[in-house]
Amino acid sequence: MKLAPLLLLTSPVALALAQEALPTRFGVVLFTAFQALDVFGPLDVLNTFSFQQKNITLSLLSRTLSPVSTVPITMGTTFGESIVPTHTFDAPPSNLEVLIVPGGAGTRAPDLTKEIDFIRAAFPSLKYVIAVCTGNALIARAGLLDGKRATGNKKSWSWVTSQGNKTHWVAKARWVRSSEKIWSTSGVSSGVDGVLNFVETIYGEAVATDLAHGIEWRRVTDPDDDEFAAIWGAKDVPPLE
Amino acid sequence: MKLAPLLLLTSPVALALAQEALPTRFGVVLFTAFQALDVFGPLDVLNTFSFQQKNITLSLLSRTLSPVSTVPITMGTTFGESIVPTHTFDAPPSNLEVLIVPGGAGTRAPDLTKEIDFIRAAFPSLKYVIAVCTGNALIARAGLLDGKRATGNKKSWSWVTSQGNKTHWVAKARWVRSSEKIWSTSGVSSGVDGVLNFVETIYGEAVATDLAHGIEWRRVTDPDDDEFAAIWGAKDVPPLE
Repeated sequence: MKLAPLLLLTSPVALALAQEALPTRFGVVLFTAFQALDVFGPLDVLNTFSFQQKNITLSLLSRTLSPVSTVPITMGTTFGESIVPTHTFDAPPSNLEVLIVPGGAGTRAPDLTKEIDFIRAAFPSLKYVIAVCTGNALIARAGLLDGKRATGNKKSWSWVTSQGNKTHWVAKARWVRSSEKIWSTSGVSSGVDGVLNFVETIYGEAVATDLAHGIEWRRVTDPDDDEFAAIWGAKDVPPLE
Repeated sequence: MKLAPLLLLTSPVALALAQEALPTRFGVVLFTAFQALDVFGPLDVLNTFSFQQKNITLSLLSRTLSPVSTVPITMGTTFGESIVPTHTFDAPPSNLEVLIVPGGAGTRAPDLTKEIDFIRAAFPSLKYVIAVCTGNALIARAGLLDGKRATGNKKSWSWVTSQGNKTHWVAKARWVRSSEKIWSTSGVSSGVDGVLNFVETIYGEAVATDLAHGIEWRRVTDPDDDEFAAIWGAKDVPPLE
């Protein structure tokens, strides 16, 4: 759905209705050892967007309200940052419309039941989901990618694709529009190109271009324009029959 | 200083000394309304680097230990994220070696005395500074760019360049190596290319390439390869005589 044709309408009522239909309530799933850029690439775009689109809101969801660290302790490092959530999975905001699901080493934690149950329960009432990197493994496990095409992190390709055997995994892709509701992006940095495509689709090309220029982002506009599948030797994985 | 020649040395003592000389203690200056990607682009690279280079440490410095928000309240938005600092400017970690200075709307706050005083006081004992985006205005005000070439955010070019009249501001640049100690990068996303150049310079090209491939970053390796000066109409600004 592009906004551009709607701008041709001159009726204030039609325009107001169109504005009302635009999503305003964004959320992000946070968990220990999330990948920083998976979250803050898309969010930097949306943060900057909020300077002009002042009615958008952000909820940061996690198991508890304690700060959530990027550090994967399994990697033997303490280097990382902690982010403050705004809501728990048990008490989410009402009427979330767009959910961003990042990846990171934490997607391999032994117990992600809370995260996956939240995604599965939230999905029917969401308008859009943007999964980044190994976040695609989480939404696959929640069943969101069953029968759909999707992509994910190329370095962790064999693991990501093992997490959803009802999905057609597309290797050579910066992102895949899995459905009207779902953007599935490749590894880490590609989340920015995915969210810019989301912005272009929902709010129009001029908005996306302006945001990309503002953050000096060299945008990939062709979803199939990807060199990392070849670099990491990732091949398509069809669904198991 | 490239590491590659040192790898030719076979003496364990020489190698140990070379390893010891590599910087391990990183810090980031945080302030209200910092730009998320200015911080989390470089940090995602370093977070991932820490999975292999396990001796690096990170300090997040701010005025107080309260979470620091990206939200510029002057923009009439509440959309943003809060990060937990680890140290105050008044009680910084000892022996910081690398300092990252981000930009964002907060660099235009009326009083940045604490931030600028900290940068100025820390500089002599630092090995390296990486300034991103309008963070260049902060290090210019701290005097670090006097008599040097530098760049900064292209959308805010006239404002950035007004903050240091002893600097030769270079418009067409993804980043500028202002001195042996200072990397000055352009707007927001360019911080990642700047920090990858830092990693290449200090730890070697193979490390930088591997990190870029891991996060699926389409790296700019030529510091002069920049299209955003033209997009935003930014021109070189020589120092005032």
